Amino acid sequence: MTGAPNSVLALSGGVGGAKLALGLADLLPPGQLHVLANTADDFRHLGLYICPDIDTLLYTLSGNANEVLGWGRAGETWNTMQALQGLGGATWFRLGDKDLATHLWRTAALERGEDLAQVTDKLARQLGIASLIHPMCEEKVSTTVHCAQGDLPFQQYFVKEQCKPAVSGFHFEGIARARPSSNVVSLLQGTAVAAIVVCPSNPFVSIDPILHIPGFWQVLRDHRAPVVLVSPIVAGAAIKGPAAKMMAELGLPVTAFGVAQHYCERYPGLLDYFVIDESDATLAREIAGLGVQVRVASTVMKSRDDKRRLARFTLDLVAA
Amino acid sequence: MTGAPNSVLALSGGVGGAKLALGLADLLPPGQLHVLANTADDFRHLGLYICPDIDTLLYTLSGNANEVLGWGRAGETWNTMQALQGLGGATWFRLGDKDLATHLWRTAALERGEDLAQVTDKLARQLGIASLIHPMCEEKVSTTVHCAQGDLPFQQYFVKEQCKPAVSGFHFEGIARARPSSNVVSLLQGTAVAAIVVCPSNPFVSIDPILHIPGFWQVLRDHRAPVVLVSPIVAGAAIKGPAAKMMAELGLPVTAFGVAQHYCERYPGLLDYFVIDESDATLAREIAGLGVQVRVASTVMKSRDDKRRLARFTLDLVAA
Repeated sequence: MTGAPNSVLALSGGVGGAKLALGLADLLPPGQLHVLANTADDFRHLGLYICPDIDTLLYTLSGNANEVLGWGRAGETWNTMQALQGLGGATWFRLGDKDLATHLWRTAALERGEDLAQVTDKLARQLGIASLIHPMCEEKVSTTVHCAQGDLPFQQYFVKEQCKPAVSGFHFEGIARARPSSNVVSLLQGTAVAAIVVCPSNPFVSIDPILHIPGFWQVLRDHRAPVVLVSPIVAGAAIKGPAAKMMAELGLPVTAFGVAQHYCERYPGLLDYFVIDESDATLAREIAGLGVQVRVASTVMKSRDDKRRLARFTLDLVAA
Repeated sequence: MTGAPNSVLALSGGVGGAKLALGLADLLPPGQLHVLANTADDFRHLGLYICPDIDTLLYTLSGNANEVLGWGRAGETWNTMQALQGLGGATWFRLGDKDLATHLWRTAALERGEDLAQVTDKLARQLGIASLIHPMCEEKVSTTVHCAQGDLPFQQYFVKEQCKPAVSGFHFEGIARARPSSNVVSLLQGTAVAAIVVCPSNPFVSIDPILHIPGFWQVLRDHRAPVVLVSPIVAGAAIKGPAAKMMAELGLPVTAFGVAQHYCERYPGLLDYFVIDESDATLAREIAGLGVQVRVASTVMKSRDDKRRLARFTLDLVAA
């Protein structure tokens, strides 16, 4: 994959990352946004192959995201779940009727022997998405959450236990054998990529898996394109999800500084820019001390305009 | 499984068989009807393990059958199929939203390592069914339809091609390794079974697979309980499905006599009684010539009363 000039590569997990990806997609010409999606929370459930982060990206970038729920498809119905409940089946992972179609489609294609990259690309095309969504790898990677009560598979921790157990760490089973998306690797080998954006996703369970693929973060570090990270922690809290709670449990400061510390210690030299929210402006100097250039913006994305504004800020930053 | 005294064992495929099974269930005390279901049209589709005949029995015996469509669940919705169509997915096998729950439930249970007999029994209990439904075997058996244009997997012939290709025969892949339902085998070893009813199902693709399980039809033949078959062909036509068309293509007379000929040639000595419809009364003598006792009844089951009346006729016949 050679890619269009001035392409942007965005690393993303689910909801928060998808918001910035949508802003970027709104601003960039078709085919210029490449989103590299975490797949370490993929899992098989009820016979189906489910990719929560890819699906959130698919639904968000195609305008099919459920704004009311904050996850899943717009205008969703729950007739299958209701019938499954009537059978005494497992309904802790809520699969909407429309959402189910995606899982059935994907599972059928994978069973036919297509790879996840092909399958994801076809789904994106079918949904009319002009950006490219790449699974981080083809190999099966499964996140285990180390908790006081023992290890939990990610979705059990995240959905069934609603992130309640205290975490002490994470393990990405299979990551040692994983190879980064071949499309993204060849994209990075050319001159197309002008910016690498780490979206405001959970550092531990969304971005770390991508950066843990052997050798991959070094490829990003050594690429000529600047790497910009947007803090997922704003004013000491995560906009959505368990990132702040995890930081506290891991003994990190629950601030944008804590996020920066995590990335700068684990991936030295990776980040060029670290974008924090206006409400965290006082942390700028401290974060800069970690050896990263800090920029301050309004990073909370509620409206479509918010998303575009933050995307514009990010693009302007790397263009400068 | 010992079974209640005066139990009835009914061999059944889908729709036609399920109607008589419902009539029998209405008349018999709870636990006294055992239905042995064809599983040779089971298949995996979109990642799911689908048992069309078992599901038709489950829905029919629990009062959840879709009377309008003649298949599937009552009050069905199609949101998943609609979304799947939007993704360009395979929608030739129509899976309703409620029906999907059954397949998801079953697939999950099988993936946990439960066997099909357990899974089917739990589904029956969950749906409040007082009869017992037994899959014919645990082994995977797959029907191939030999057609002029080549071999077709059963569901492709039956649903996708709508039974249009002319058939020249059938093959039940895996049948040589299949062992009959252990529950039914132990039931037949005791004294509980007082009648064996072959429901008016398709002889070739619903009943033949059951009777082709090595050694099984001989067990039925040698059992003290009389074996009663109700003709699925009435006045030269099948009430539903391709049985009549198949008979014509196979060179059999498309009559109740043709059905009797098929059974008496393939399974000599199996049938004690052959029940034909009033409209076929003139065939009685000819069928009796095959060495089976013929009885004439009103066999078309439209209403619930029709089903009960035919069930009553069948039970009275064996009680006599």
